[in-house]
Amino acid sequence: MPNIEEQNLTEFLQDVKLKMANITFSKDADINEISDFLNESHGKFIRSQVIYLYGSNLGIKKERLIELAAASELIHLSTLIHDDIIDEADLRRNKPTVVKKWGSKKAILYGDYLYTKTFKTLNSIENHEIASVLIDCAEKLIEGEFIQIRANNTLMTIDYYMEVIEKKTAVLFSGILHCLGIYSKQNQENIDYLKDLGLSFGKAFQLNDDLADFNDSSSTGKAKFKDLDEGKLTFPILIVLKEMNQQEQTEFKDQINSKDFIAIKEQINERGGFKKTRAERDDAINNCIEYTSKFIKLDKLDNMKKFLRNTLLA
Amino acid sequence: MPNIEEQNLTEFLQDVKLKMANITFSKDADINEISDFLNESHGKFIRSQVIYLYGSNLGIKKERLIELAAASELIHLSTLIHDDIIDEADLRRNKPTVVKKWGSKKAILYGDYLYTKTFKTLNSIENHEIASVLIDCAEKLIEGEFIQIRANNTLMTIDYYMEVIEKKTAVLFSGILHCLGIYSKQNQENIDYLKDLGLSFGKAFQLNDDLADFNDSSSTGKAKFKDLDEGKLTFPILIVLKEMNQQEQTEFKDQINSKDFIAIKEQINERGGFKKTRAERDDAINNCIEYTSKFIKLDKLDNMKKFLRNTLLA
Repeated sequence: MPNIEEQNLTEFLQDVKLKMANITFSKDADINEISDFLNESHGKFIRSQVIYLYGSNLGIKKERLIELAAASELIHLSTLIHDDIIDEADLRRNKPTVVKKWGSKKAILYGDYLYTKTFKTLNSIENHEIASVLIDCAEKLIEGEFIQIRANNTLMTIDYYMEVIEKKTAVLFSGILHCLGIYSKQNQENIDYLKDLGLSFGKAFQLNDDLADFNDSSSTGKAKFKDLDEGKLTFPILIVLKEMNQQEQTEFKDQINSKDFIAIKEQINERGGFKKTRAERDDAINNCIEYTSKFIKLDKLDNMKKFLRNTLLA
Repeated sequence: MPNIEEQNLTEFLQDVKLKMANITFSKDADINEISDFLNESHGKFIRSQVIYLYGSNLGIKKERLIELAAASELIHLSTLIHDDIIDEADLRRNKPTVVKKWGSKKAILYGDYLYTKTFKTLNSIENHEIASVLIDCAEKLIEGEFIQIRANNTLMTIDYYMEVIEKKTAVLFSGILHCLGIYSKQNQENIDYLKDLGLSFGKAFQLNDDLADFNDSSSTGKAKFKDLDEGKLTFPILIVLKEMNQQEQTEFKDQINSKDFIAIKEQINERGGFKKTRAERDDAINNCIEYTSKFIKLDKLDNMKKFLRNTLLA
């Protein structure tokens, strides 16, 4: 039987989904067909979970949290739809992507539609600062994708990749926590802590996702070797590449290009790539715990630590 | 030598371009490269011209008009960039399209970037109603494009096409004039007239553009037979198709598919298609003049009529 906290979270996520369905409803049949499909294949709503757990601990009203969560999930979803066109991805969460199912024309338009609806929601939020923070996140998400398509396999380095992680994943978590700081009227020092908490959370989240690509993991809903199959150079690969000499790099890249997934995994393991990625992720998780303890009362802290570990350790 | 009015308009358009360049500036080199290219190949800024001429006659402050014009041009520009991907268009205003020059990945992202910057501008406008009106326009623009890709050549009818014209062209003009009504504090009746004026303006504008496709016209900057080449069924074609029997329709569509432009033009001419399109356009222009006379003082009316005729009669 779920405990009270879990039950409340489940109810909250249902409310967020309902809010999203209301926001995205259209009189156009094509648009609704895609919306219905997406409503049935939602992910774990990590952004909404963060908003619920931190937001309710900070004493923010539920309606505000639902609105913020719906807007954040919609920003995330819009970028996924266009990213899947750009990455030529066929599958997401074991279902066909919008571009695979409806073609790139409708996928471009549907992404634009979601984007517009998101901004409409943001415009309706009374507090202008909230909209401003989230629009800035959307801008950085796009910059991150520009960096990623510019950095093809030859150019991508670990430093470049950390910038991509920050802009494509961490910035939105940081923006969400920034908004929670605004709503709960924190002082500037605390707002800066919340923003840093979001950046660490996003970093740990992405590194954990990078690790998950090498394992069968039904809990993440991610197909094994999905990133590798799309030719993405993630942290475990880049950290290993960095310490190779020219000839080793060429051989390793050949393995990547020929999609010899088992050999790649062995190489990374032998050279300590997974260990280093886990260490980097665990550092970020520890930062999250440290920042969290500045805001969350002691009696709730264990519960929050549990959430962080459950979410960020695949 | 230009007269004072023309000089003021030219200055205003320069201010709008400067505002747009400031809004779209990015630290990302790829983004700026595309922005610079677009800044050098702007169209005639018809939306800004409408805003300047009607807005200044309604006594609205210049800064507000510049901001409104920049936001409207950016909404228009964002949709053009994604539409050109969807239409697989190679040329716009005799220059390569963004998708042709930079590929679809960067074109999708750049469109998203412009969209985000546009909403950022809208969010910074103090009057929430203005942002709300323009976001609704953006939503309808997307719905219009959905209708257009759904209605492939077999399905497109004149009624369907009028809905596309309304959503893809007229709604933004209507929204612009609605905003001018809000800024100049008009009563509801007058705001409704202004919205109708925008719808008529947009209709006349698009029908005139449809006619221009069949003529060499350096003034519109549109390549001859561009619509036909992209397989678009416009008003002159649809009005002729409507009155044909099944066999004639099949033969006419074969001519369209084989891109026999001269034969198509002859058919339309013989069957009165151009005449009917001109009549429909001229009706819309007369509506514009009638609505305009409700707002614009008699001594300025001749000037406005001149603008309407210059803009809507190619």
